[in-house]
Amino acid sequence: MSKKLSIIIVEKDRDRAMQIVDSLSLSGDYEISVIAEESGLARRVASLNPDIVLIDMTNPSRDTLEELAIASGPMERPVAMFVDQSDDTLTKAAIEAGVSAYVVDGMRADRLKPILDAAITRFHMFHRMRTELEATKQALEERKTLDRAKGILMKARGLSEDEAYALLRKAAMDQGKKVIDVAQALVTTAGLLS
Amino acid sequence: MSKKLSIIIVEKDRDRAMQIVDSLSLSGDYEISVIAEESGLARRVASLNPDIVLIDMTNPSRDTLEELAIASGPMERPVAMFVDQSDDTLTKAAIEAGVSAYVVDGMRADRLKPILDAAITRFHMFHRMRTELEATKQALEERKTLDRAKGILMKARGLSEDEAYALLRKAAMDQGKKVIDVAQALVTTAGLLS
Repeated sequence: MSKKLSIIIVEKDRDRAMQIVDSLSLSGDYEISVIAEESGLARRVASLNPDIVLIDMTNPSRDTLEELAIASGPMERPVAMFVDQSDDTLTKAAIEAGVSAYVVDGMRADRLKPILDAAITRFHMFHRMRTELEATKQALEERKTLDRAKGILMKARGLSEDEAYALLRKAAMDQGKKVIDVAQALVTTAGLLS
Repeated sequence: MSKKLSIIIVEKDRDRAMQIVDSLSLSGDYEISVIAEESGLARRVASLNPDIVLIDMTNPSRDTLEELAIASGPMERPVAMFVDQSDDTLTKAAIEAGVSAYVVDGMRADRLKPILDAAITRFHMFHRMRTELEATKQALEERKTLDRAKGILMKARGLSEDEAYALLRKAAMDQGKKVIDVAQALVTTAGLLS
């Protein structure tokens, strides 16, 4: 990577924040911001748009843990969470909120770098899969919409499937739109017209 | 969970294996098997079919790490991997091989339980997503196949879309098959007949 990795550290305790900054500085060249205040976290994380967020919490409640995880945008960027202790409910809540790394009692200088690496890799894997899932779902939906639109035209105007598709394509070209958008408009409005 | 969690520990060092077994026994009631021999690992893991595999390696090469990760079946069950040290290439290789937890220098008694919890939750999340992706892909493929089969019938026999579908459905019912299987057979053989 040519660009410096930008990191947000979410940490209430000033001394501990400085410790983490020092630990990180030993393992690489980062652009680091510390956020001590939990309120407004989502807005601040979104505006700084970091490459990764580290959240350090001593002994969080489940609500606090979930709030901070979600505010950090774990679908947009890797989020690594450090807690001093955990139980299975808390661990489950953190992973299901989407954090890419969940570390219990492990904020140690020589362990930070592999945790960052793992969180970033895991985030990208998950993100690729989610993107593929969304694209596949959309392709399926579009295919259904197109079939429905062709069906409407075939019935309303006594056309063959090919003719119906040709008509949709011509309408799209005439209006500078995509075939799927014309098909969607037809499906949306067909109920109104009949 | 009512059933005991079954765990395989992959560990060459006998003393260390005993240590891990002891640590685990402190945190819960498990059914534990230790495998010291790396050869034939895939077969042995598959036959024991554990709920989770823990792999402990001192300082693995990338090849060994990938081999053991894949032999443990990380798509079938959670796999947690412990190494004494790592670099970003090794970390990336482990995560991309599909391990659900990758822990550097962290095989400590009081940390094992949350790592198991995290690995299991992460595995299930990933598995759900992968299952959904496969189902969506299959639905899309089936829709394409059905459209192709209808198109073949419409063209070959001068049918409307509805008539083509009715014909496929009748053939399926007559033969006690699913519509999609008849459609697939038609698409597969259409080239042979024309």
